[in-house]
Amino acid sequence: MDVKQQALDAHEQHHGKIEITSKMKVTNNEELALAYTPGVAEPCKKIAENPEDSYKYTSRGNLVAVISDGTAVLGLGDIGPRAAMPVMEGKAILFKEFANIDSIPLVLDETNPDKLVEIISSLQYSFGGINLEDISAPRCFEIEKRLKEQLEIPVFHDDQHGTAIVTVSGIINSLKLKKKEFSEMKVVLNGPGAAGTAIIKLLLEFGVTDIIACDRKGAIYQGREGLAGTYKEELAELTNPRSVQGNLEEAIKGADIFIGVSVAGALTKEMVQSMNQEPIVFAMANPVPEIMYEEAIEAGVFIMGTGRSDFPNQINNVLAFPGVFKGALSVRASQINEEMKKAAALAIASIISEEELTTEYVIPNPFDPRVAEAVAFAVAEAAKATGVAKGGN
Amino acid sequence: MDVKQQALDAHEQHHGKIEITSKMKVTNNEELALAYTPGVAEPCKKIAENPEDSYKYTSRGNLVAVISDGTAVLGLGDIGPRAAMPVMEGKAILFKEFANIDSIPLVLDETNPDKLVEIISSLQYSFGGINLEDISAPRCFEIEKRLKEQLEIPVFHDDQHGTAIVTVSGIINSLKLKKKEFSEMKVVLNGPGAAGTAIIKLLLEFGVTDIIACDRKGAIYQGREGLAGTYKEELAELTNPRSVQGNLEEAIKGADIFIGVSVAGALTKEMVQSMNQEPIVFAMANPVPEIMYEEAIEAGVFIMGTGRSDFPNQINNVLAFPGVFKGALSVRASQINEEMKKAAALAIASIISEEELTTEYVIPNPFDPRVAEAVAFAVAEAAKATGVAKGGN
Repeated sequence: MDVKQQALDAHEQHHGKIEITSKMKVTNNEELALAYTPGVAEPCKKIAENPEDSYKYTSRGNLVAVISDGTAVLGLGDIGPRAAMPVMEGKAILFKEFANIDSIPLVLDETNPDKLVEIISSLQYSFGGINLEDISAPRCFEIEKRLKEQLEIPVFHDDQHGTAIVTVSGIINSLKLKKKEFSEMKVVLNGPGAAGTAIIKLLLEFGVTDIIACDRKGAIYQGREGLAGTYKEELAELTNPRSVQGNLEEAIKGADIFIGVSVAGALTKEMVQSMNQEPIVFAMANPVPEIMYEEAIEAGVFIMGTGRSDFPNQINNVLAFPGVFKGALSVRASQINEEMKKAAALAIASIISEEELTTEYVIPNPFDPRVAEAVAFAVAEAAKATGVAKGGN
Repeated sequence: MDVKQQALDAHEQHHGKIEITSKMKVTNNEELALAYTPGVAEPCKKIAENPEDSYKYTSRGNLVAVISDGTAVLGLGDIGPRAAMPVMEGKAILFKEFANIDSIPLVLDETNPDKLVEIISSLQYSFGGINLEDISAPRCFEIEKRLKEQLEIPVFHDDQHGTAIVTVSGIINSLKLKKKEFSEMKVVLNGPGAAGTAIIKLLLEFGVTDIIACDRKGAIYQGREGLAGTYKEELAELTNPRSVQGNLEEAIKGADIFIGVSVAGALTKEMVQSMNQEPIVFAMANPVPEIMYEEAIEAGVFIMGTGRSDFPNQINNVLAFPGVFKGALSVRASQINEEMKKAAALAIASIISEEELTTEYVIPNPFDPRVAEAVAFAVAEAAKATGVAKGGN
């Protein structure tokens, strides 16, 4: 039986993937009086006096909402809230499995950004953090930005920042093998959507200066027709200092690093051969990458990463989001800022020692139990250092 | 240690009461590929083709949202969303304990009824049903009504209908002992808020005709000053056919049944003695009833019910809501209608056989395991009979 049918059967057999369990027993009148009336009035009164006590007496301190509007689900696109739910439930169980964080999947029957901000804002006191998921670009940028400004709790769009953190962690380790600095690298990114844009911004934080973003019309540069008023206008300002024009084939010449968050087949052998010596290629189109693994190696790629578990160096978000939220929740961070994301990328990279590091092992295995702990610790420390830690351990 | 401190300690020790667990394991790449990418795309695609498949491949079919805006929490009033959460978590674990229904507590930082309807509507595809909780009257009437009109899934404001169902179940059994019919009874209800109004409406469904609602200004009658445009205007039309005026002391003279959902001490011995012979008194103010148990018995009350577990005949909502939702979810009912509520009240009453029935045992014990099953079965049958069952078993 193939994996598709197996996946359908497993989802049907269990009727989905999440279940609620109780941390307090209620099997007799005495227990009922503690967990429910009249005893429950006491924590209610304490929280009414001191709102921060909601972290003490309710589950919210370890509870994350996984929220989607179903507009950009996997590679399937705008399939709506109901059809998005299996992904959100999957995310919820990954939070539990990888970081022992409780999380609740919510799909919203709303696509208007203003309304989404209102709805998600109204939910904030139920949770310790909000993981946005599979919301289409460019709407996701505005929605996340406004929520971050309004909410007391951390908001994190995993499609953007989770992918960025793991990608950059792989590049950190790749540069160790190449004995190069970020600032020396020429980078080309193909597909500046939600993930691509976040990768660009995180690379800039790490000191990259020469990066070109390519979309279907080719390199993005200041003054390119049709950019005005779009999020790509900001990208044009942040990137492409040499004002390279033309398609990917032109832009990639002489580059050291190619990052693909685009479509199968976007990168040819010839393009790879036009890059600088021993290039780094992270081809993350799913399920079929921008260039197949064997082809890339044949063309001279030094380090190759993909989104797939059947090739070396899998870029898998599960390396980031469980630990990022665990760290943020542990110190009750009010946000997940750039320093915390950088700390997460460095922590993931650091799991592989200099001795272990090879071209086929620049990114840890998703099931390496050290990852979430290391990320959580680093993120918590960064939160404290940047003054956004409001309490906790 | 008193129960208050014990309750605080228990809530603090566990950090709240709910936890999320996974129904599918994710401990290796094979399991990850089934529960998450790439396998998860299959149930997503099936649901995108046929939205009803969301009941097949996700957890929503057994998942209820417990939603509050924190405006009328227990007897504490408008303590806000954060402070309401311990009650909502309590409700969630009761759903699990009493009917094996998964439920998710959500508190909303919003009190505008229009906005609440929008927010709750947007959440509907995440759940199989919505249990509204602790929303202040009269806002709760409008909010529930509009949600019932708009949503595909059942909506049930437990403070209204749960209380009504259990109260009426006790009266059904009381009338068996008195060998009387609903239509022969003179009823006075003190405190026509959320619960009181729902009790009145359910009693009317059962054939009561002579019922007087009293608020702080006394009996509600058609034409009473200040009623126009309020929900009490409808009550005045539905009740008080003899147009009795005056305060509770006046209204209660010659009544057979007193139902209190008001305040401690509202009912005096003298008032009881002015009632018809061997009256029925359900005094549900919490934690101190309208009249104390011993005092009521001394004054000649035949059957006395309260909200407390330390007296006979406890009116406890947990007898109703778990089974009501279990029944509604089992046949994928699109709503919880009057026939389903009536069926629930009759099912609760039927748990006590004619032989077992005594004045001190007209309402089953909250922990009687037969109750939820009986209620669920009756509610499912009533849903089918009234054409609102959309699927399921």
